[in-house]
Amino acid sequence: MHDTPGIFPASEFENRTARFQSEMAQRGMDALLLTTPPDVFYVTGFLTRFWESPARPWFVIVPARGEPVAVIPAIGEPPMARTWITDIRTWEAPNPNDSGMTLLGDALRDLVPDTGYIGTPMGLETHLRMPLADYQYLCGVLGQRTLIDATACVQRVREIKSEAEVAKLRNICEIGGRAFDQVPQFAQPGTSLEAVFRAFQVACLQQGADWVSYLAGAAGPSGYSDVISPAGTRPIANGDILMLDTGAVRDGYFCDFDRNYAIGKPSAETTRAHEALWRATEDALAAIRPGMRACDVHQLLCQSLVRHGAEPGVGRLGHGLGVSLTEWPSLSADDETPLRAGMVLTLEPGAVLDQGRMIVHEENFVLRDDGAELLSPRAPFDLPVIAP
Amino acid sequence: MHDTPGIFPASEFENRTARFQSEMAQRGMDALLLTTPPDVFYVTGFLTRFWESPARPWFVIVPARGEPVAVIPAIGEPPMARTWITDIRTWEAPNPNDSGMTLLGDALRDLVPDTGYIGTPMGLETHLRMPLADYQYLCGVLGQRTLIDATACVQRVREIKSEAEVAKLRNICEIGGRAFDQVPQFAQPGTSLEAVFRAFQVACLQQGADWVSYLAGAAGPSGYSDVISPAGTRPIANGDILMLDTGAVRDGYFCDFDRNYAIGKPSAETTRAHEALWRATEDALAAIRPGMRACDVHQLLCQSLVRHGAEPGVGRLGHGLGVSLTEWPSLSADDETPLRAGMVLTLEPGAVLDQGRMIVHEENFVLRDDGAELLSPRAPFDLPVIAP
Repeated sequence: MHDTPGIFPASEFENRTARFQSEMAQRGMDALLLTTPPDVFYVTGFLTRFWESPARPWFVIVPARGEPVAVIPAIGEPPMARTWITDIRTWEAPNPNDSGMTLLGDALRDLVPDTGYIGTPMGLETHLRMPLADYQYLCGVLGQRTLIDATACVQRVREIKSEAEVAKLRNICEIGGRAFDQVPQFAQPGTSLEAVFRAFQVACLQQGADWVSYLAGAAGPSGYSDVISPAGTRPIANGDILMLDTGAVRDGYFCDFDRNYAIGKPSAETTRAHEALWRATEDALAAIRPGMRACDVHQLLCQSLVRHGAEPGVGRLGHGLGVSLTEWPSLSADDETPLRAGMVLTLEPGAVLDQGRMIVHEENFVLRDDGAELLSPRAPFDLPVIAP
Repeated sequence: MHDTPGIFPASEFENRTARFQSEMAQRGMDALLLTTPPDVFYVTGFLTRFWESPARPWFVIVPARGEPVAVIPAIGEPPMARTWITDIRTWEAPNPNDSGMTLLGDALRDLVPDTGYIGTPMGLETHLRMPLADYQYLCGVLGQRTLIDATACVQRVREIKSEAEVAKLRNICEIGGRAFDQVPQFAQPGTSLEAVFRAFQVACLQQGADWVSYLAGAAGPSGYSDVISPAGTRPIANGDILMLDTGAVRDGYFCDFDRNYAIGKPSAETTRAHEALWRATEDALAAIRPGMRACDVHQLLCQSLVRHGAEPGVGRLGHGLGVSLTEWPSLSADDETPLRAGMVLTLEPGAVLDQGRMIVHEENFVLRDDGAELLSPRAPFDLPVIAP
C-alpha cells in the first residue's frame, strides 16, 4: 500500500555491496552477517521503527559474490520486498523453538564454503542483535566454518559517505537548524525544561524530520553538568545556559548537533567559554584534512581550546555520523583511524568550568579532499540571548 | 542541574532487586549482568535516550545480596548518581583498548565466588548489548565462574508490574488515547501519510508524551498489507482504511496500541472485519484469567475471530508491555508462559482479507486476579469515519 519510491536507487546499494565485497576479499571473508538496524538499513534500504521491539532478530548476509540475502521474520516481508533485495527468506517470529536459526544456518551453509570465514561485527561500538544462545547454537551448526570479527570491514565501508548520503545528511542538518532557530520562541524563562524538550521535538517534526530519535540537553546557572539526560521539571531561569542536542532523522539519516542559548545576559565566564569553543571549532574546521588521524583532530581541538583560554572536556570531542546517531571513528586521544575524504563527522568540543559545570558545542561536516564542508548551519559566534 | 525527583521512590527499586535476588537464588545465580536499556532502567531508574549511540556499553550487576553495582561510561555518572544506585564505577569511553572490561571483570570477580554462576539474558527476545569480542574476553578473565542464561529470571520479574508501574502505563495509554482522538482533525483525504505521521507524533507530544519511540501504520483501499513501515508520500484517499500504531513513552513506560479510521463510508467487508476484531477482543478481555497460558489466549482469540466470521492473522496476537515496546510473553500458539496477575499485556488480533490485505486492532490491559482491566481507552465498536 505504500508507495515510498525507496530512499535511494538500487545502484546506491549495489555500490555499497561491491565495497563490502572488496573489503571482505581483502580479509578472506566468505560472507558478512549483519544484525543491527543501521547495518541492515545500510545494505538493503529496509527502514522501519519496528526495531524498537526486541522480539525478533533480523539477518542480512552479504556473500562474497552476488546480492545480499535477507533472513527475516515474515512480518517484514512486504516492506523488504519493496527494497532492491530479491532473495528474502522468512520465518514466523517470535518462535520459542527456532528463532530463524534453521533458516539462517541453511543460508550460511549454502553461501559459505565448508571451511570458510563468516564475518560479523564483534568490536568497538558494535553488538550482535540476536540472542546469545542462538549465536552459540549457530556456531555449532556451521561445521568447520568460522565466525570472525568484521568490525573493521563494516567501519571502512560505512564511514565513507556517497554524495547521495551527504545530501540526506545535509537535509536533516538543515531541518535541525530550522528547529534550533525556533527555540527562542518557546524557551522563555519560567518554561520547564521538559516543555522545551517537547516543543523542540515538535519543531523538528514540523520542519521535516520523520522522527526524533535523540534529544538531550540541560539548563543551569552559567552552564550544566550533564549532557545526556532527559528533561526535568525545573523552569529555565534568568542566568541559565540552555543547551539542546538533537539526533533528528529524515530518510534514515541523523543529524547530531547542539546549540546553546543564554537566558538573559551571559556571565563573562560563559561568554569566554563559548567563544573558545567557537574558535576551536573554527580552527579544527580550517585545519582538518584527509590523512590526519582521528586522534590528531582531538589533539588539535584540545590545543586550540587551551590557546583560547578554555579547559578541554574529557572524552571524545567528535565522531562519525550517518545512519546511526554516532558512528566510528571517535575523535579521541587513542583512536588512530585515518581520516578520509567522504567521512561525515561531528566536532563537539567541551569546555570545563568550575563546580562540575561545562559548556559543549557541536557541528556536523563532510570531509572533502581540501577540507571540511559544513552540513549544520554554523552556530553564531555570539551566544544567542533569550531576553528574560 | 536537573531536579527530576526520580520516576519512582527507592523502595520500588529495592523491591525489584529483592525479586531478582529471589529468582536468582532459586536458580543458583550469584550475580545478574544486565546490558540493555530496559534492563538497566528497570533496576536503576537511569533513563536516557543516549542509548541511541552505540558507542558505549553500559553494565549493571545485581549481586546475590546487597545493592546493584553500575559499571558505566563516565559521561553517565551525573545522571546515575541521581538514582538510588550508590556503587557507580566509571571509565572513559569509548576506549579502543579497554571498553570497561577491566572494571567489569574486577567487579564480577569481587561479587561472585570463584566457581560461581553469573546470569545474563541469552534467550528469546534478548540480546547482549556489548561487543561480542569483549564478552568473549570477559568469559576468559572470570576464571572458573560460569556465564549462564538468565532470560527466565529477568522475564519472571519484569513481567509482573507494580501498582506504580501500572499507573505509569495507564498514564501513557491515556496520552496515546488523547492523541488518537485528534486524528480526524489532521487525517483528511488528500493528506499524505507522512504528514499524518508527523501530525500524530506532534499530538502525542502535545498530549504529554516525553518522546515517540515507535509509530507505524498504513492506509489503503479497504485495508493494508504492511503494519511496520514508516509512512510514504501517497495521499490518503476516500475508501481507505487508515491505521496508526504507536509506542509513545512517558517516564520510560510505553503504550502500544493502534486505531483504525475509515476515510469515507467503509465497505461491508471492512465493517465486518472490524466488528469481528472488536468482538474477539471483547471476548478475550472477558475470558482472560491468571493461570491460563499465553497460548491459551492465542487460541481463544483465533476461535473467537472465526466465530465472528474473520480469518485470524498469523503470528502472535499480543504480547507483554512495559519499559519496552514489546516484552515477554507472546500471545502465540507456542508460548506456554503462565499468565499471572500483575502482567500488562496487549491484545492485537488481526483479520486477513483477500489480496494480501488485513486489518489489525490492539488494546492494552493489566491482568488482575479477576480478569482484565483496560489501560487503553477502548476502541469504538463502530469504525470511526473521517468524512471525505
